[in-house]
Amino acid sequence: MPHSHRSRVRKESPAPEDAASRRGFLRNTAAIAGAALSGAAGVVGSPESHAAVQGERWQKAPGTVPGAYGQPSEFEKKIGRVGITGYPDVTPGAGVSLTPIQSLRGTITPSGLHFVRNHNGTPAIDPAVHRLMIHGMVQRPLIFSMDALYRYPTITRTYFLECSGNSGRNLTPEPQQISAGILHGLISNSEWTGVPLSLLLEEAGYDRAATWLLAEGADAANMTRSVPMEKALDDAMVALYQNGERLRPEQGYPARLLLPGWEGNMNVKWLRRLKLTNGPTHTKDETSKYTDVLPDGKALQFTFEMGVKSVITHPSQGVTIEPHMYHEISGIAWSGAGRITRVEVSADGGVNWKDATLHGQHLPKSVVRFQLPWEWHGTRQVLLSRATDEKGRVQPTRQAWLAQYHADMRYHNHSIVTWAVEEDGSVRNVYA
Amino acid sequence: MPHSHRSRVRKESPAPEDAASRRGFLRNTAAIAGAALSGAAGVVGSPESHAAVQGERWQKAPGTVPGAYGQPSEFEKKIGRVGITGYPDVTPGAGVSLTPIQSLRGTITPSGLHFVRNHNGTPAIDPAVHRLMIHGMVQRPLIFSMDALYRYPTITRTYFLECSGNSGRNLTPEPQQISAGILHGLISNSEWTGVPLSLLLEEAGYDRAATWLLAEGADAANMTRSVPMEKALDDAMVALYQNGERLRPEQGYPARLLLPGWEGNMNVKWLRRLKLTNGPTHTKDETSKYTDVLPDGKALQFTFEMGVKSVITHPSQGVTIEPHMYHEISGIAWSGAGRITRVEVSADGGVNWKDATLHGQHLPKSVVRFQLPWEWHGTRQVLLSRATDEKGRVQPTRQAWLAQYHADMRYHNHSIVTWAVEEDGSVRNVYA
Repeated sequence: MPHSHRSRVRKESPAPEDAASRRGFLRNTAAIAGAALSGAAGVVGSPESHAAVQGERWQKAPGTVPGAYGQPSEFEKKIGRVGITGYPDVTPGAGVSLTPIQSLRGTITPSGLHFVRNHNGTPAIDPAVHRLMIHGMVQRPLIFSMDALYRYPTITRTYFLECSGNSGRNLTPEPQQISAGILHGLISNSEWTGVPLSLLLEEAGYDRAATWLLAEGADAANMTRSVPMEKALDDAMVALYQNGERLRPEQGYPARLLLPGWEGNMNVKWLRRLKLTNGPTHTKDETSKYTDVLPDGKALQFTFEMGVKSVITHPSQGVTIEPHMYHEISGIAWSGAGRITRVEVSADGGVNWKDATLHGQHLPKSVVRFQLPWEWHGTRQVLLSRATDEKGRVQPTRQAWLAQYHADMRYHNHSIVTWAVEEDGSVRNVYA
Repeated sequence: MPHSHRSRVRKESPAPEDAASRRGFLRNTAAIAGAALSGAAGVVGSPESHAAVQGERWQKAPGTVPGAYGQPSEFEKKIGRVGITGYPDVTPGAGVSLTPIQSLRGTITPSGLHFVRNHNGTPAIDPAVHRLMIHGMVQRPLIFSMDALYRYPTITRTYFLECSGNSGRNLTPEPQQISAGILHGLISNSEWTGVPLSLLLEEAGYDRAATWLLAEGADAANMTRSVPMEKALDDAMVALYQNGERLRPEQGYPARLLLPGWEGNMNVKWLRRLKLTNGPTHTKDETSKYTDVLPDGKALQFTFEMGVKSVITHPSQGVTIEPHMYHEISGIAWSGAGRITRVEVSADGGVNWKDATLHGQHLPKSVVRFQLPWEWHGTRQVLLSRATDEKGRVQPTRQAWLAQYHADMRYHNHSIVTWAVEEDGSVRNVYA
C-alpha cells in the first residue's frame, strides 16, 4: 500500500547533474529564481579588516594532543539527538532518539547521531558471551561465537535504515512546530559490513521448504520478527561493522540483522537467534505493532518495504532565512525499492517543479543528497520535494497517502513534506 | 618519482567480483588454497547448548536510554588511535595519532579514529570568530564568516587522506614488530562535503595569471603550503562536513582545504587564508619538510600526488591465526591518481598472485576494500598485496621504491607491504 502506483509515474529519469561547476550552479540558479550569487552569501570584509581576526588565541598557543577516540567540537555540542521516551514506568528504555537531519549534510549519518528505536533500552552485551544460533528447518543447527562469526567473509554496502514510525508526528490534525529531525529523523544512512545471511543459511544446510525465518534479539524486549526466506537469501546480511568500526551498542552490537530497504525494527539488533520455519511466527512485535490500519479498520500485516521519500532538511522548521539572498535548498531522499532517480523541488506550493541535483553515490536503498540553489525574495513561499525511484514509484502527496489508511495509521508515512517560508523569513511546518 | 612507470604495467583490469555469493566465495577459496568452509569458522555448538547462553543479564533487565551523541561499546575501548609525539619540549602538540587499520572493516574511517598529524596541536576554534580570507591576485579580496561560507552550494565526495610520512616506520633497517596501524595508519577515508574551491575563487575574481595559491591554517604552527592553481580549480574543495556532521576539530574545524589524492599536510586544516600568487611561496613547511631526498642528496620538491598503495590489514602483525581453517585476507587500497582497478594477493612471497575481490564503491582517490579467502595449513607463508590504479600504475616492491631515493628519504613510501605467517600462526612484519 505505501508503494501504490496510483500516483503519476514519470518515465523519464534525467541523469542527475553535478552542481560542482559554477556553470551548472548558475544554470540551476537562473532556472529556479534568477539568483545572483556574488555578494549574496554574506561576504564580510576586505584584507584590511582581516587584521582584526589575526592572532586569535588559538594561533598564539599550542593546541591539544588528540586522544584515542576523537569527538566533535565543543562548539557543536548543540547538535545532538533528541530522545523521546514512551511509558518509562511500563517499558523502561522504550523510545526513540532522533537524528538531527536538519544539521547534517552529505549522505552518511555519523554513528553517534544514528537514530535509535529501542523497545526496552540498549543492552550492554559482552561479545565473549553472546551467541548466534541458526536452527529450525536446517540440516545442521549451528551456534556461532562472535569470534567465529567475525571470521566469515564479509561484504560492504551503504544502506539507509528507517523506522516505520518515522514521520508519524506529521499525522497530527495540525502541523507541529518541531524540527525536521523530530518530525522525520528516524532515518539514518551507514556503510555496513557483514556476513551475507545466505552464506550462514547455507552453512546450516537450510531446508528448501522453509519459507520464513524468525529473528530474535538479545535485548530485554526480546524483539522478534518474521522474515521471508526470499529476502533472507537476497541481500540480507548479519552486520558486524558500521561506518568502518564495530557496530555501536545502540545499533545492535555485536551483531544485527540487516534487511536493506525494509522497515527498521525488522533489522533485529543484538541478533541471537534465527529459526527457519514454514510460515510467519506472528510474534507480539508484528501483531500488536507494525501493522497498517486500512480505512475499514482491518490491519494489513507485513508491509516491509519502506516507501520512496524525501525531506528538505534546509531550510526547514525553526530556521529564519534572509531575503534577497542565495540559499541552497538541500535534503535527503531514499527508497526501499532501489535507487532514487529523481527529486523535484517546488518553491511555490507545488505549481512549478524543478529537478534538484543529486549528490552522493546513487546507491540502491541508500540515502542520496539533493540540492537546488534558490533565492528568496521576501514573499511567503511553500517548499516541497518529491522523490522518484528506479521502479518509477513517486512520493505521494499527504492527502493521497492519508486516503489509503484509517485515521489510526501511524506507520510508513512517506508522503511529501512541506515547509512554509513566512514573510519574516521564519520557516514553519505546514500541511499543504 | 613515487609514480614511476618502471614497474610492470598490467593492461587488463578484470571487473571485480562480488564475493557475496557462496558460489563466488567458494570459487575464490578453491582457487587460492582449496579451503573447506564448512566447519572451518569455529561453529561452536548445537541448539541444546544454546540454553547455556539464554537468559544473560542483558535479557533480564532493561537496557540504557541513548544519549544525545552515541559512543562505541565499552568492550571496544581497546580499539583506539595510538598517539606518538615528536619533541614536546620544542613543538608541543606536534605528532601523530594513527588509525588502527588492523581493527577496521569496510571503507569509511569512523571520524573518531581518523588519523591526525598536527604540527602544534589541535586548536579549539570558535566558528563565530574564525574567518577565511581570499586575497592576492584577485579582483575582489573577500573575507568569509563561517555563516557566509556555510551558505554556499556544496558537493559531497568520498576521498582518502594520507600523510606523506605514512609507512615511514617501515624504512628502518630491520622490520619493526608493531601493528599495521602504527606502521601504515596515517591513512583514513571519509565522506567530505564542502564548497568547490573554484566557486570561491571565481567569487573573488581570480586573476588568470595566478599560477599558485598559498593556503594558511589558523593553528599555532601556522601550517602553510603552496598549491598550484590547476589543482585549486580542479577537484579542490573547502571542506565543512565530514561523514555527515561538521568537521571534527582534529580534521580542521570549522573549514579545511581538501586536495583529493594529494599529500595530507597540503590539505590545510583550520583554513584561514588563501593568497593567489604567480609562483610557489616556498614556506617553511615545504622546504624544511615534505621534500623527497634523491640518491644524489638533492631534494625533490612538490611531489604532491600520493602513490598507488595497498596494505593487508588482516591478518597482520600481532595476531595469531589457527591452522587448517578459513581466513579472509582483507585490506585497503587507494591511489592519488584515481580509481583502484586491481589488487593482487600472494600467499607465497610473491611467486603466485591472485586477484582479490574489491568491495566498496570504486571511487577515485578513495579507499577500496579488498578481500580474498584463504586457508592456512601451518607452514610459514609470506603474504603480500599489490595494487594497480586506473592510470596503470602498479605498487612497487620495497627494493624498487628504495632504489629511487637517498637513505634519508622518509616520505611517500607506497611500496608493497609484507607479512609473514610463522609456523606457530603468529604474524610478523618482514621485508621480503
